[in-house]
Amino acid sequence: MKHPDALRIVLVGIGKIARDQHVPTIAARDDVQLVATVSRHGTVDGVPAFQTLEEAFAAHPQIEAVALCTPPVGRHALAQSALAAGRHVFLEKPPAATLAEIDDLRVIARQAQRSLFTSWHSRCAAGVEPARQWLAGKQLVRVHITWKEDIRHWHPGQDWILEPGGMGVFDPGINALSIVTHLLPRPFALRKATLHTPSNRQAPLAATLTFADTDDVPVTAEFDFLQTGHQCWDIAVETTQGALVLSEGGAKLHIDGVAHSVPAASEYDGLYARFVQLVRAGESEVDTTPFVHVADAFLLGERQVAAPFAW
Amino acid sequence: MKHPDALRIVLVGIGKIARDQHVPTIAARDDVQLVATVSRHGTVDGVPAFQTLEEAFAAHPQIEAVALCTPPVGRHALAQSALAAGRHVFLEKPPAATLAEIDDLRVIARQAQRSLFTSWHSRCAAGVEPARQWLAGKQLVRVHITWKEDIRHWHPGQDWILEPGGMGVFDPGINALSIVTHLLPRPFALRKATLHTPSNRQAPLAATLTFADTDDVPVTAEFDFLQTGHQCWDIAVETTQGALVLSEGGAKLHIDGVAHSVPAASEYDGLYARFVQLVRAGESEVDTTPFVHVADAFLLGERQVAAPFAW
Repeated sequence: MKHPDALRIVLVGIGKIARDQHVPTIAARDDVQLVATVSRHGTVDGVPAFQTLEEAFAAHPQIEAVALCTPPVGRHALAQSALAAGRHVFLEKPPAATLAEIDDLRVIARQAQRSLFTSWHSRCAAGVEPARQWLAGKQLVRVHITWKEDIRHWHPGQDWILEPGGMGVFDPGINALSIVTHLLPRPFALRKATLHTPSNRQAPLAATLTFADTDDVPVTAEFDFLQTGHQCWDIAVETTQGALVLSEGGAKLHIDGVAHSVPAASEYDGLYARFVQLVRAGESEVDTTPFVHVADAFLLGERQVAAPFAW
Repeated sequence: MKHPDALRIVLVGIGKIARDQHVPTIAARDDVQLVATVSRHGTVDGVPAFQTLEEAFAAHPQIEAVALCTPPVGRHALAQSALAAGRHVFLEKPPAATLAEIDDLRVIARQAQRSLFTSWHSRCAAGVEPARQWLAGKQLVRVHITWKEDIRHWHPGQDWILEPGGMGVFDPGINALSIVTHLLPRPFALRKATLHTPSNRQAPLAATLTFADTDDVPVTAEFDFLQTGHQCWDIAVETTQGALVLSEGGAKLHIDGVAHSVPAASEYDGLYARFVQLVRAGESEVDTTPFVHVADAFLLGERQVAAPFAW
C-alpha cells in the first residue's frame, strides 16, 4: 500500500535496468509510486505507457518526478524538458553523455528550483559503508580494482555501449570508480591509461588505469568486458593496519581475509530512499567525480586496437 | 627597471612558448622579475639555470612564484611541489593532463594558501573584451569556430602534442574554446564530435564539433592541424541584431563586416597582470571550462583513422 504522499514518478526508458531494478524497487517502497512509463518499445504491466514525456505529463499532471533509464546520449534533453516542466530528476549512471551536459543540468535545476540526483547505485552496495568506516583514519598503501565481466551475458545486444558516448568497459567500470571515489579519504587523479578498442567498434572493451592520490598512494584498475567464467568486481585496499577486499561489486566485505558481516542492503532501495529525501528537502546531489575519471581516461589514455567484436 | 616589490618568478620549461612569450613579457613588465629558470635543456641568457625546482628554490629562496611552461603531462607534479614549497603557481594552458589533476591542485593550493592561476592566453587577445561587450544582451542565432593551422609551422618536431595527453589539434583548439566560453552568455555542451587521428599517432589532427547552449543555440567548430597556406583562427557569432567575427585568434574584430577598433593588447601581458593581481589579493582563478569541452570531445567523439603523419 502506497503512502498518500508517495512521490509520483514516471520512468523513462523501459530496458534492462528499469525492469531489473527500478520497477521492483518502486513497487516495494511505500514512498514512491510509478504513475506512468515513457519508452519507445518497453512497457510495464498495469502502468500507463507513453511515447514522450510531454504526453505523460499531459495525461498525468500529478507526476512530480522523472527517473531516466535511457542510454546516456540523449538523457540531457529529457532531463532539461523534465526540469523545465517543473519535475524533479533522477539520473541513472552515468548521468549524461558529457561533463558539460551535467554542468548545464546543475544550473537548470537550480534555476527551476527542482531536485537533481546523479545516482551511483554501487555506492549503496551493502559492504561500502562498513568499508568506508573501517578505512577512516587508516594509512593507505595501495588500492587495486579488478572489474571483469562478460558483456555478452550482462548487456546482450546493447550496441549503444560500444558506440561513441557509450563508454564501453567504462559503463561497468564507472561503478567501481563510484565506490572508490566514495571510499577513499583523499581525491586521486589519473596518471596513465591504456584503452583496448576493437577494430570495428568505437568504445574500449578493456582498460588498465593508474591513478595516484594526493599523497601519491597508487590506485590501479583493470577493466575487462570479455571475461568468461568467474565474474569479478573486486576492490582491494591495503593499509598499514591490514587489508580490505570489497567483492561482488561491493556486496561482500573481507578484512584480513575474514568475512565481515554487513547489513542487508539493496542498491536501488538506497537510491530511491535518497532521492525521496532530496526531493522532500528541496536539495540536489550532483557528484560527477566518477565520470571525470572516465573522461580523463579517454583524454589521456593510449589507444590500442584490439580484435573485432561481434555478439 | 624593476619595482622593488616585483613578483620574483622561476620559469619552468624553456621551450617555444617560454621564449616567444613569457621571457619577453616578464622582461617588459616592472612588477615581475625572472629570478631563475628550470629546464632540461633550455636556458635564458643572464638568468641562473637549474635542473630541478628544488635546486632553484635552494639557491634562490626569495622565489615567490612558479610559471609552468612544460607540456601538460607532468605539470601536476611540478605544481604540487611548488605549492608544497609555499610558492604561487601560474599554469600555461591546458592547465594539466587531466581534469582530476586540476581538481587536486585546486585543493592543494587552498590548503597551502597560495594562488593558483589557470591561464588562458587567448582570452586576453585584443578583440575579446570588446566582442563580449558588444554581444551582451543580444540574442544569439549561431556560433561557428574555424581553427586551422599548420602543425609543422607552429609546433615543429613537438612530438608530445601527438602523444597521449598531448591533445593534438585540441592544443590550439582549446584556445578557441577558451575564448568562446568567456564570450557567450550561456554555457554550452557537446552533442556530437568526430576526431580524425593519424594511424601512426595517438592524438587527433582534425575534429568537427557540434555543441548547443542551454537555449539550444548551435555552436559548431572545425579544427584542423594540417592547414597550409592561409592560417585561420576565426570565431563568427550571428545574432538577431548583426554578426560579429573575431579573427586572428581574437586579435581582430569585425561587426557586420566592418573593422571595429580594439585597444592595443598583448595576451601574455594581460596574463601576467592578472597573475600579479591574484597573488597580491591572496586569490586563485581556476577555470577548467575549456578543458572540460576537450575531455568531452575525447569521451563522446567518433574516432576515424586518418593517413599517417610525419614531420
